Amino acid sequence: MPIVYCAIVCGLIAVIYGFVTSGQVLRQPAGDAKMQDIAAAIQEGAKAYLSRQYMTIAIVGIVVAIILAFTLGWLSTICFLIGAVLSGAAGFVGMNISVRANVRTAEAARTSMQGGLTLAFRSGAITGMLVAGLGLLAICGVFWYLTGPAGHAPNSREVIEALTALAFGASLISIFARLGGGIFTKAADVGADLVGKVEAGIPEDDPRNPAVIADNVGDNVGDCAGMAADLFETYVVTIGLTMVSIALLVQASAPDLMRLMALPLIVGGVCILTSILGTYMVRLGKGSIMGALYKGFWTTVILAVPAIYGVTRWAVGDMGAVIGGAGFLDAGSSALTPEATAGIAAHSFTGWDLFFCMMIGLALTGLLVWITEYYTGTNYRPVKSIARASVTGHGTNVIQGLAISLEATALPTIVILIAFVAAFQLAGIIGIAFAASALIALTGMVVALDAYGPVTDNAGGIAEMAGLPEDVRDRTDALDAVGNTTKAVTKGYAIGSAGLAALVLFGAYTTDLGKYFPDLRVDFSLSNPYVVVGLLLGALLPYLFGAFGMTAVGRAAGSVVEDVRTQFRDDDGIMKGTTRPNYARTVDIVTRAAIKEMIVPSLLPVLSPIIVYFLITAVAGQANGFASLGAMLLGVIVSGLFVALSMTSGGGAWDNAKKYIEDGNHGGKGSEAHKAAVTGDTVGDPYKDTAGPAVNPMIKITNIVALLLLAALAGGMAG
Amino acid sequence: MPIVYCAIVCGLIAVIYGFVTSGQVLRQPAGDAKMQDIAAAIQEGAKAYLSRQYMTIAIVGIVVAIILAFTLGWLSTICFLIGAVLSGAAGFVGMNISVRANVRTAEAARTSMQGGLTLAFRSGAITGMLVAGLGLLAICGVFWYLTGPAGHAPNSREVIEALTALAFGASLISIFARLGGGIFTKAADVGADLVGKVEAGIPEDDPRNPAVIADNVGDNVGDCAGMAADLFETYVVTIGLTMVSIALLVQASAPDLMRLMALPLIVGGVCILTSILGTYMVRLGKGSIMGALYKGFWTTVILAVPAIYGVTRWAVGDMGAVIGGAGFLDAGSSALTPEATAGIAAHSFTGWDLFFCMMIGLALTGLLVWITEYYTGTNYRPVKSIARASVTGHGTNVIQGLAISLEATALPTIVILIAFVAAFQLAGIIGIAFAASALIALTGMVVALDAYGPVTDNAGGIAEMAGLPEDVRDRTDALDAVGNTTKAVTKGYAIGSAGLAALVLFGAYTTDLGKYFPDLRVDFSLSNPYVVVGLLLGALLPYLFGAFGMTAVGRAAGSVVEDVRTQFRDDDGIMKGTTRPNYARTVDIVTRAAIKEMIVPSLLPVLSPIIVYFLITAVAGQANGFASLGAMLLGVIVSGLFVALSMTSGGGAWDNAKKYIEDGNHGGKGSEAHKAAVTGDTVGDPYKDTAGPAVNPMIKITNIVALLLLAALAGGMAG
Repeated sequence: MPIVYCAIVCGLIAVIYGFVTSGQVLRQPAGDAKMQDIAAAIQEGAKAYLSRQYMTIAIVGIVVAIILAFTLGWLSTICFLIGAVLSGAAGFVGMNISVRANVRTAEAARTSMQGGLTLAFRSGAITGMLVAGLGLLAICGVFWYLTGPAGHAPNSREVIEALTALAFGASLISIFARLGGGIFTKAADVGADLVGKVEAGIPEDDPRNPAVIADNVGDNVGDCAGMAADLFETYVVTIGLTMVSIALLVQASAPDLMRLMALPLIVGGVCILTSILGTYMVRLGKGSIMGALYKGFWTTVILAVPAIYGVTRWAVGDMGAVIGGAGFLDAGSSALTPEATAGIAAHSFTGWDLFFCMMIGLALTGLLVWITEYYTGTNYRPVKSIARASVTGHGTNVIQGLAISLEATALPTIVILIAFVAAFQLAGIIGIAFAASALIALTGMVVALDAYGPVTDNAGGIAEMAGLPEDVRDRTDALDAVGNTTKAVTKGYAIGSAGLAALVLFGAYTTDLGKYFPDLRVDFSLSNPYVVVGLLLGALLPYLFGAFGMTAVGRAAGSVVEDVRTQFRDDDGIMKGTTRPNYARTVDIVTRAAIKEMIVPSLLPVLSPIIVYFLITAVAGQANGFASLGAMLLGVIVSGLFVALSMTSGGGAWDNAKKYIEDGNHGGKGSEAHKAAVTGDTVGDPYKDTAGPAVNPMIKITNIVALLLLAALAGGMAG
Repeated sequence: MPIVYCAIVCGLIAVIYGFVTSGQVLRQPAGDAKMQDIAAAIQEGAKAYLSRQYMTIAIVGIVVAIILAFTLGWLSTICFLIGAVLSGAAGFVGMNISVRANVRTAEAARTSMQGGLTLAFRSGAITGMLVAGLGLLAICGVFWYLTGPAGHAPNSREVIEALTALAFGASLISIFARLGGGIFTKAADVGADLVGKVEAGIPEDDPRNPAVIADNVGDNVGDCAGMAADLFETYVVTIGLTMVSIALLVQASAPDLMRLMALPLIVGGVCILTSILGTYMVRLGKGSIMGALYKGFWTTVILAVPAIYGVTRWAVGDMGAVIGGAGFLDAGSSALTPEATAGIAAHSFTGWDLFFCMMIGLALTGLLVWITEYYTGTNYRPVKSIARASVTGHGTNVIQGLAISLEATALPTIVILIAFVAAFQLAGIIGIAFAASALIALTGMVVALDAYGPVTDNAGGIAEMAGLPEDVRDRTDALDAVGNTTKAVTKGYAIGSAGLAALVLFGAYTTDLGKYFPDLRVDFSLSNPYVVVGLLLGALLPYLFGAFGMTAVGRAAGSVVEDVRTQFRDDDGIMKGTTRPNYARTVDIVTRAAIKEMIVPSLLPVLSPIIVYFLITAVAGQANGFASLGAMLLGVIVSGLFVALSMTSGGGAWDNAKKYIEDGNHGGKGSEAHKAAVTGDTVGDPYKDTAGPAVNPMIKITNIVALLLLAALAGGMAG
């Protein structure tokens, strides 16, 4: 229990850091009246959208909570609500600071690059620490209450179901937030570009464009609030399911199990501390902006090594003593073939093994960051090849971009698989779970890097709209360009954690199955045709989901275009600059479109596992129903990993290829190559900011719904 | 044996049909001197390319043959060579008739639509019947020789290895032919469009464009020769592996086994006859061109029902008698878990069961054709939505096209899975194999519909270049528009057969494994991490392969653009129309580029299974090496199915969205919407004609290499 208390303290430090730094940020000057006016419009729009979005999600959430209350009881329902509310809170707080930091960053950029960088990054760090801190506090709180005051054993059914329900709450909110925010931001962005840049021939962020405020609102509700909810979900699911796996798989005395289950918590805790230290290392010095951000990132990673060593030693005592061993699997293995059991549980491990697994997680994080930078940075072959292909036109730009997006899946997959095999060799499934936990423990720093992006993007927009001098805009542009890469990094990181966690999630499913249905023999072999059916249906989900997301953006952007055209037509003064366009109306239109469009695709991963289970059970019996459902969980990862990686990397590469041309290559702004690159960027927008990133929570939801379905079916039989 | 003789007779009838109809086609008037001149240039270019391509493939083929001779012996080597030579021959003969029919179709279209349609379709039917006929003769010949004069049992190792090697020969050639031809045709097409339509502002097929002959050559070497080699491969692999599965799985007396293994052969035979009858029903009447083609298709399908009933009854005798039964699995099941064995072999079946499975195959063919038409035809929502999105620009056109391409995977996957489960419920894996065989037995008719496309495309080009009257061009355009849909149909059909055959291929692998390594316990359960590794590596292959294919087209198209620019610069007379451009030089450049670019990606699926096996064996032992390899086979199908379906349907939809606008919608030719649609079409080109269709042979190669690797490893241990 002292380990859990320490983890709680770390979580509280993160929250305190958030409040203190918020105060620092808000004390900075907020610019002149015009800037404050613009910022207020963005704030108002973002709040209006977020409250409408949360209202809609609340309805879904309440329906789900009622279903949970009837099927799984009040404990799961409360945990579900905690996860849901905190996921929403993480997004809301992040957005709230971001819409205040934007104008202050623009003001700070008037005097120096360092000033703008510090402010934008600090505001990102607030979001980052709150995401990690709230996530850690949620899991610690639930675990502490259940194993302490409520007196349940750490591997009791109550603890496992509570952690799963907590993760479900976080996931359910995050898929809506990611998708709704993603549709909003890209519909506004694409719509504003189409009607502003292309039709009216006015520059980006021109205040005469009625969609320009909606575009800036989108950065905050999509890239900030949506992203924060997503990473909160990833954090809770990864740490939570690592604990669930330990509870399900490791045979040890209750105190030993307690300490082992607390290890991922305290790892998360100390990594929050190293992340906070890292944020103070983000200084420009002589290097580039990217270099300054990397200084913070690498400081966090390097400090994490001794910190993780220390807490591992604390938790396991003797680093060389064997944990687990024979009779390793706890219960209910009779539902599995002997081989399946062997696959999950064949390993015993030592403290050193766990430490090395976590080092693998840290190394994987570094590699994923580096690969993402290679595929989306302007200094390397991929982005340059897209820029070069733009010279011969729109078509070749898109062809090369698609080629890069397909190619960009290879290296991440290979390094994930190497990490996967290495961690498994060291400590079996538990090893993989710890590698994933160490990777995700860096969330605070990674989210800080990401949330920095929308702030600088907004700052640039405000500088343009408020007519600040050219050199201010140059500084915000330079800060913003780096944001494209850091935004891509987070997405690769989140989906990488899902890839790594694939077998952990499946392992939780199979052992749960053994626990709940000890008499059922389920065949997960690839030669079972219902396994193949499940794999293919699972693989279909990311495609369908991607199709919905892309179509939604196209449709919503169309309504933006129409509204702007109407405004231009009805009031000549707008283009002359004499009347102010009706920004709020456009924001309202995108808001309604995004909320309408997010519902059906978000329900897809919630309902699919349930439908597949009942359908296959009806056709081929319950054992095959469970086999299909299990295979579906892996199918959705096998295809989702590639869909998400290709979309996010490809989109980032397209975006920066445009930036590379705007920097004066291949004819620069206004050239034919630039027009082609703008097309590529437009295509990449829903790829990288709507469909691609939402695949990550989609994968988790499918898995968690399957776990809850198991519990509900077992409860129904027992009751 | 009489069944095999009858199948041989059907194969011979197909070949005779080919010769007789060739004579009819060649006797038609070949147009005026100018037309013949153009046609001669296309013929020359196509022959030059194909002979260079075959020379390159021959080198690879000989190397592989030598390796096979040392590892698997002379019998496999000879069968490999038969498969390779006939696959090449199918492509060569198809191309040869196509380059002669094109000019005759243009000439016939001078007088009537029916004349052009008949000629183009007849020439397609020649290719179709030769593909099916040669495929059937190859399998029948090998099977007859080995079980007759050579005296081997039908389920002996010799028969199984010979059929596998035959399939390997066909697959190896077809992946080179599909990819090389695909790169050629799209590099020439994209290059010609970019530099002609976009830069020089001259229409498509303008004789002043030096790349115009290369573009027409491409239709023949890619859409005709490459497609024919691909379908030959699909035919041989599907029928051959159905026989292998029967040999491996069904426990019956030698004569019963003989007759059961001959059933797919005679089903192929009678479907050739119904296909030939179908070709005579392609008449315009009052309906549309598509309707005329459908008359032929549906006649073939409907006649196939009683024909298949008849031969099934002949082969099994009593339609109600049980075949298989307990003790069903033949040999070597010890490598598998009891569940795995159950999955493969749990079913006994009757003649009626087999008949209904084949009906499922026919129904699936019809559904796949209908779905493809829905997604790529100009009358339905998908194509119309892309056309509408073109109004707002290049970006929205591409976004909507990508959305449709993602969405287009859903319905085919679902109908394939329904067919899969239904066939499995009736007769287990053997049922699925028979469903796939019945589907593929319609190859003659399906290829006829497809090969019709490049002929009309070329006819249009020749009509334009030879300056034939407007109304002739209108007729060839109308014929060509339908070709876009029929071309998409074949690709969906081929990849659908691969999806259906997934478990059959995996079943052959697992039972082979049991035969060759009876003492090894291999765990194919999804909870084995090496299975997950294999699934993900397999899923990566289509992505990498797609990336290579797309990049290759971009690069080769770039060299076309440069050559054409040089020609325009060096000789003013070309644009004035006073000097003839150097067509041959452009053809030569594309030829060299395509051949260079096809090699590395084609070797990817050949080498990957071998590398994965040895790598995982080194890390985690032989059992896990085999588990990873087996999972890779399913991984490549799970992801390949979606990549191929999305690319081919999406590409077809983009192409027809352009055609839809050219028909006068959304502003028609020359409007901004049209320009955006041209971009989409350009993007779709390498999607649908290079990367997408080549995924089908790629899937097969990976599977067959794995089977041969097993045999080679077993042989090395035995010898």
